[in-house]
Amino acid sequence: MNTLGRLFRVSILGESHGECIGVLLDGVPAGLSLSAQDFLPDLERRKGGTKGTTPRKEEDAPLIKSGVFNGKTTGAPLLVLIENKDMDSSAYEKLKDTPRPGHADLVAKLKYGGFNDYRGGGHFSGRLTAALVIAGVVAKKMMAAAKIKAEANVVEIGGAKDAKGMERAIDEAVKNQDSAGGIVECRVNGLPVGLGEPFFDSAESLLSHAIFSIPAVKGVEFGAGFASARMKGSECNDAIVDAKGRTATNNAGGINGGITNGNELVLRVAVKPTASIGKEGGTVNLRTGKQEGIVVSGRHDACIALRVPVVLEAVVAIVLADLMLIEQKIGRVNTR
Amino acid sequence: MNTLGRLFRVSILGESHGECIGVLLDGVPAGLSLSAQDFLPDLERRKGGTKGTTPRKEEDAPLIKSGVFNGKTTGAPLLVLIENKDMDSSAYEKLKDTPRPGHADLVAKLKYGGFNDYRGGGHFSGRLTAALVIAGVVAKKMMAAAKIKAEANVVEIGGAKDAKGMERAIDEAVKNQDSAGGIVECRVNGLPVGLGEPFFDSAESLLSHAIFSIPAVKGVEFGAGFASARMKGSECNDAIVDAKGRTATNNAGGINGGITNGNELVLRVAVKPTASIGKEGGTVNLRTGKQEGIVVSGRHDACIALRVPVVLEAVVAIVLADLMLIEQKIGRVNTR
Amino acid sequence: MNTLGRLFRVSILGESHGECIGVLLDGVPAGLSLSAQDFLPDLERRKGGTKGTTPRKEEDAPLIKSGVFNGKTTGAPLLVLIENKDMDSSAYEKLKDTPRPGHADLVAKLKYGGFNDYRGGGHFSGRLTAALVIAGVVAKKMMAAAKIKAEANVVEIGGAKDAKGMERAIDEAVKNQDSAGGIVECRVNGLPVGLGEPFFDSAESLLSHAIFSIPAVKGVEFGAGFASARMKGSECNDAIVDAKGRTATNNAGGINGGITNGNELVLRVAVKPTASIGKEGGTVNLRTGKQEGIVVSGRHDACIALRVPVVLEAVVAIVLADLMLIEQKIGRVNTR
Amino acid sequence: MNTLGRLFRVSILGESHGECIGVLLDGVPAGLSLSAQDFLPDLERRKGGTKGTTPRKEEDAPLIKSGVFNGKTTGAPLLVLIENKDMDSSAYEKLKDTPRPGHADLVAKLKYGGFNDYRGGGHFSGRLTAALVIAGVVAKKMMAAAKIKAEANVVEIGGAKDAKGMERAIDEAVKNQDSAGGIVECRVNGLPVGLGEPFFDSAESLLSHAIFSIPAVKGVEFGAGFASARMKGSECNDAIVDAKGRTATNNAGGINGGITNGNELVLRVAVKPTASIGKEGGTVNLRTGKQEGIVVSGRHDACIALRVPVVLEAVVAIVLADLMLIEQKIGRVNTR
Repeated sequence: MNTLGRLFRVSILGESHGECIGVLLDGVPAGLSLSAQDFLPDLERRKGGTKGTTPRKEEDAPLIKSGVFNGKTTGAPLLVLIENKDMDSSAYEKLKDTPRPGHADLVAKLKYGGFNDYRGGGHFSGRLTAALVIAGVVAKKMMAAAKIKAEANVVEIGGAKDAKGMERAIDEAVKNQDSAGGIVECRVNGLPVGLGEPFFDSAESLLSHAIFSIPAVKGVEFGAGFASARMKGSECNDAIVDAKGRTATNNAGGINGGITNGNELVLRVAVKPTASIGKEGGTVNLRTGKQEGIVVSGRHDACIALRVPVVLEAVVAIVLADLMLIEQKIGRVNTR
Repeated sequence: MNTLGRLFRVSILGESHGECIGVLLDGVPAGLSLSAQDFLPDLERRKGGTKGTTPRKEEDAPLIKSGVFNGKTTGAPLLVLIENKDMDSSAYEKLKDTPRPGHADLVAKLKYGGFNDYRGGGHFSGRLTAALVIAGVVAKKMMAAAKIKAEANVVEIGGAKDAKGMERAIDEAVKNQDSAGGIVECRVNGLPVGLGEPFFDSAESLLSHAIFSIPAVKGVEFGAGFASARMKGSECNDAIVDAKGRTATNNAGGINGGITNGNELVLRVAVKPTASIGKEGGTVNLRTGKQEGIVVSGRHDACIALRVPVVLEAVVAIVLADLMLIEQKIGRVNTR
Repeated sequence: MNTLGRLFRVSILGESHGECIGVLLDGVPAGLSLSAQDFLPDLERRKGGTKGTTPRKEEDAPLIKSGVFNGKTTGAPLLVLIENKDMDSSAYEKLKDTPRPGHADLVAKLKYGGFNDYRGGGHFSGRLTAALVIAGVVAKKMMAAAKIKAEANVVEIGGAKDAKGMERAIDEAVKNQDSAGGIVECRVNGLPVGLGEPFFDSAESLLSHAIFSIPAVKGVEFGAGFASARMKGSECNDAIVDAKGRTATNNAGGINGGITNGNELVLRVAVKPTASIGKEGGTVNLRTGKQEGIVVSGRHDACIALRVPVVLEAVVAIVLADLMLIEQKIGRVNTR
Repeated sequence: MNTLGRLFRVSILGESHGECIGVLLDGVPAGLSLSAQDFLPDLERRKGGTKGTTPRKEEDAPLIKSGVFNGKTTGAPLLVLIENKDMDSSAYEKLKDTPRPGHADLVAKLKYGGFNDYRGGGHFSGRLTAALVIAGVVAKKMMAAAKIKAEANVVEIGGAKDAKGMERAIDEAVKNQDSAGGIVECRVNGLPVGLGEPFFDSAESLLSHAIFSIPAVKGVEFGAGFASARMKGSECNDAIVDAKGRTATNNAGGINGGITNGNELVLRVAVKPTASIGKEGGTVNLRTGKQEGIVVSGRHDACIALRVPVVLEAVVAIVLADLMLIEQKIGRVNTR
């Protein structure tokens, strides 16, 4: 459903063109300093605004509705909302019967019997990643108490891995009213040995579970990932160099047997190109049943991957914070 | 932990060199025909025995211990065990203090304070995938009642995608006492629209969660996956061709917005090369604290990917069967 | 934690003297008619206002923040908030160091390291039962679609079971600045056979789990309940009178072996007397460590049991609605 | 379903006349000493054998199938089975079409479409409480590490609270081929303040959830329980006597606001009289649809409440051990 986690639990809610989006956090340790201002830097990072991201100005003013008292978390459920403002839903009326290819418009209509809020993708909107970012800020605070830091970066756009090539891919996408995909990498340092379980709750299982909730992600790999499928065992095995488990190489990406091994956690995600493009795509008119061409007008991200890093950091931090609580590496009350 | 699923729940147990391995299934619909024989074909497929897989003869005689009466499932918890026989654990004694690189030996020791059963990897052993296969057989029966079929195949070994190249990669690995990685693909036909949830329980989230519990998997991708990161939006978007959501291409791999769209489900997993190899690797002697060379003797799979397809089918079926129950596409009692 | 349910999931939030209280509902079927007005009758019932309940005028104006579009539920998470207004928290400052006996003041302080919002009981406040009532209204709509109705009534106050005796007990409590306990009974008609599981998720387990989240409840019994402990088997066994499971008597209260049997569900809860009273009680001053007398001033319910029926109906409906979804007696989309 | 707990998870399985009954435990801390012998004292207590309990000689030889190595728990899933022996199921064939009143025979048949194992109650059998007892032994070991002890006793039989009266009630039941109900009380000392959550996972919620999985329990109360409904607030409130939360009286039974307050935990359960009696009851013949008299032959417990204490201790310990892990009062590895 819309909830993730065992001891630190994140539930998201809201619609793109409804009253608000938001997140409910349960299991947050009491005693963490928290104010609405703390969310702004990461929300700002998510907004984009640079070349290749939408110029649409979302006003993301987070409101803490519960769970904080005198500037500290109380241990009670923490609700944060962002109210939606100045939405123009008129453009979506005409899309009601012509589902956008690459979007969830049609599956949403079919799954929910036509009762879904279709405006701007409704609950499926990428706008809900702002709720993930908010949860991530709290998770990062929990992790910071244990001196752990997650950092994500775009490492590839349109097949290019260098800055110039990435820029060229974006320029081309903008020029052609098209879009470009990309790859985002996240690294986490300072993790203890022992997070995760041997099978169903392996660290990779839990991380990928959370990561695939980010819209547009179509692949996840850890360490050498897909490249390891082309390696020999003698290349892929990481030589152990000390009794704490430090390894000479890190093809495992910090996880052995589903459990963190104390080395850097490294993962990469494939982000498909933005589905909303100015070029014509093919759809079906649900009234007539006939195929039609469709152009998604409005201002869109030429490369949504550019906005993914802060969201990826957030969901990674959410999962790891939960595991840190489970393994008793973070206390239930923040006493520092 | 070691449990997966919401209405159809799978828990695995056991150790490689303990008394048994097994699986406990909860929420199985009553009235499915089931006998121990039903498990044999898929267990046989998992065993390997062909070139590139271990010649070790595991006798996998599954015993149904509860949940079946008069040849039919009863709706009560279903326990199936495979007893371990003729194990020679002596080889593992010397490995106790020299953790094998690429294995979970050291993380297991550190996580469980040295109390873990280290023989043959203990609970972390690939042998537990037989338990997954057993659960998969039951899940496939549930799916078959809805005319849904999952099929997985090896599509790449050592970088080669054609049969000759794959064979060459295996031969080379065997010859060099080394191992080769590979890629396994799973396709599922007949799925209804609407399985999965918009965010945390997206179909991709739940599938990847289960898939990363398979040892040696280091990457998962859906549809075009990582290749979509190099596509343009105009290439990647799948044109919708009818009101049921059929699309002209299937870059989405059968999932939009986290929800199955009625097209073929397509996913691929990266399997790293077998960690146990006859070539020397580097480790640390935990008694002396000094680095040492290590050769893992015994008979191993030169390419563990060859044994993954039936396991991948199993976990995919497990997840989908649960979603089918949740969406009421399968009944709680099998009345056919 | 603060979440209940498997397919229909209820999470509550908020504090008595914070910004708001509220409830997040996940798994609500799409297509149910729902407006803020629908919550008012049950919220009104909860308020009391009659003799024996607090004259404090809570303005309970529920706001639907997500999950409803064009007057129907969408299938997406449904958030409903009630903003708190005109609170006077000054009275609670002096209670900060003198925890009220019979309340959670001290355990909250100890559990959350002193970071809890202590004003008016904070997150522990009985005011959060309004959030339960809101969830109950949605659950009742789900149940109504299956023609099932829950109804709760006060059946005993201060030991009296007749109207005059109850009134006398209340009058006496009011007069003496004291309070009275009571017993509330809930009956549900129209339930199908088969809700609940044999052991850990027995219908009694799930119902009592939810019921003990209502503040002041200290006992739960089903059917003959504690009286059955004084019965003989020949008296207690309910003779079965038809093949559908109808019974001549109903000492089982509608549940056999943890599973609804199609007869009327009958349960009773013991509600302790309101802890906040004008009579002096004993506490400890946390600054001085010395024992002190304490009088809880303000307007309180002389008999909180009077306000429990609608809350009890709500949690019972929440549990049963979830079970109805699990057993596929309610659809995921409301098509009526 | 058949699983309980969040970090310490208990799943039960098996049938009365099937191959075995058993329990799967997940999340058991590594490093606890454990052998099959450790289960025998509590299994012996459950067996009864004294006057008022069945003379049937169940051979309860528990077999540890996984999760223990060198006499210590490993942290991996722990499976314990008891194989069923010398069962005579012939008596149950004739009961197949005449469901026993007071039993789950008919609901089981209806819920599972007739596929349930009806012999001896199948999965619904009271015999499965042996599995609870086994789980309880492990939970008690976890609790003992924190110096916490649960102890349960029969405090009332057939309405009598003194030993002579209880004995008389049993004698009478035996003489009349009837049965007697009773009340069992459990007390736990040494609990820390802070176990449980304010609402849905209140300590009372979690405990009652587990307790109602014990067959024949029809009521649960904490502290003064139902008696508190007849108290005045000034009588019921427990005066706080020190800053740790010690109280002068214990009407709350050790729980305030859903959270343990550090005082003795006290709860009582109502156990209905054994449903299987030699006196005739009324049922329906499912073939003919006609009402019939039924006598349940065989050796039965005249007072099943006599066998409940060790089972009650077990489920209480299971819940508290889980909460101790969640609140980090017990470590993930037993280092003592």
